[in-house]
Amino acid sequence: MRLARVDTPNGPRPAVQAADGWHIVDDLLAPDPVETGEVVALDATLLAPVEPRVVVGIAHNKALREHVLPIQAWLKSTRTVIGPGVPIAARRDLGQVNIEGELAVVIGRPAWRVSIEDAFDVVLGYTIANDVTSMDRVPIDERNFEPKAGRGYTPLGPWIETEVADPEAIDMLVRVNGELRAASNTARLQSTVAESIAYATSWLELDAGDVIMTGAPATFVPVEPGDLIELDFPGIGTLSNPVAEERS
Amino acid sequence: MRLARVDTPNGPRPAVQAADGWHIVDDLLAPDPVETGEVVALDATLLAPVEPRVVVGIAHNKALREHVLPIQAWLKSTRTVIGPGVPIAARRDLGQVNIEGELAVVIGRPAWRVSIEDAFDVVLGYTIANDVTSMDRVPIDERNFEPKAGRGYTPLGPWIETEVADPEAIDMLVRVNGELRAASNTARLQSTVAESIAYATSWLELDAGDVIMTGAPATFVPVEPGDLIELDFPGIGTLSNPVAEERS
Repeated sequence: MRLARVDTPNGPRPAVQAADGWHIVDDLLAPDPVETGEVVALDATLLAPVEPRVVVGIAHNKALREHVLPIQAWLKSTRTVIGPGVPIAARRDLGQVNIEGELAVVIGRPAWRVSIEDAFDVVLGYTIANDVTSMDRVPIDERNFEPKAGRGYTPLGPWIETEVADPEAIDMLVRVNGELRAASNTARLQSTVAESIAYATSWLELDAGDVIMTGAPATFVPVEPGDLIELDFPGIGTLSNPVAEERS
Repeated sequence: MRLARVDTPNGPRPAVQAADGWHIVDDLLAPDPVETGEVVALDATLLAPVEPRVVVGIAHNKALREHVLPIQAWLKSTRTVIGPGVPIAARRDLGQVNIEGELAVVIGRPAWRVSIEDAFDVVLGYTIANDVTSMDRVPIDERNFEPKAGRGYTPLGPWIETEVADPEAIDMLVRVNGELRAASNTARLQSTVAESIAYATSWLELDAGDVIMTGAPATFVPVEPGDLIELDFPGIGTLSNPVAEERS
């Protein structure tokens, strides 16, 4: 099942995808969302599928054998979250900007000190996150605040896929202006998706709608204003955003 | 003017303090909140005065001459925010737990790349934050995730005071079980309140309801389960919370 937030004449509304359109529901995060009877066309504008209260990033989680640092986490501002198609405002005044394609876990229920074995029990579904980063600030700010705080630095979407056979084996294709620039798989993550959920919730209580960005297994690419980014994760969807330039 | 969120039979409601009680309003963050006509007793239970989308902590901001590190910032989970009187669930399994009394800036409008000179223009008012920290994780996790993520680790309140003559000269008294354990003033912060607002918004766009914790100028004290903490900031109010122990 695909869950989304669609832009309607009445404002943003949660919806479930069906063959004839997006069926508006009362609450995307409810155990059983109730359809209101309204249907919106399948080509409606999609917004970020959740408005998380917390976005957790998993640190050092690159491809296998690229590093040996233990797992860590950090928080990204929820105000950097944007939906599909919305421009990323690249801070070119801060040097190189990278996009990072990451599998995003959407939490579905209260999650506190969850074991690796039970990790998937707290998951509502999966979407795609683009963890945009001003790379030249990374070595300067070990707290990850300066590199990760730009406007539009967290594209999220296009929807939440609740039926994912194996989140530990998701293909991840990164295209820039139509050209394939990276091809990886969540199986290459040094810390698994389940380990990341267990680690994050061993310190921080999460709840429905929160997001864990699980890391970039060689899915990062330097970009420039004018580029069009497509994160194509077969079985989940494609998240596409243009890169603009921060000017204000 | 004091702005609060009060617990009512109809759920949490925003309110403005008057001589005869808390006057319920439509929207605490509106430029001119409209009173609904309902009045709640002055001794009503107060909740955290805002539900911030972002809580920014200012790093290294201790007392003058205690350190020479440049200003940094980090994000604290909004899910750690609790109201006055709610127990802090101290993670004693992680070693020493400190409370930290801090002046909390509540942002009132979109705030992006604000100059030091204009910093106070984006402020709605001030409240008190207790930036509870598991100290033994600080040297282990330079990203500040592990030390700062415990349940109830960010008491906030008791209300937002909008009329503060000089936020750079707020007395800060920390009492534990009635005994004065620290006495300081925001004038002792190495980075000023205005500098902290300018720094945070130079990287991250904030908006109404967001909170900046400005740092602890020698206002940190080790605590134990069973302690009662009072952060008494004359001119703003007193934030009081008991310390319990995380057990789950």
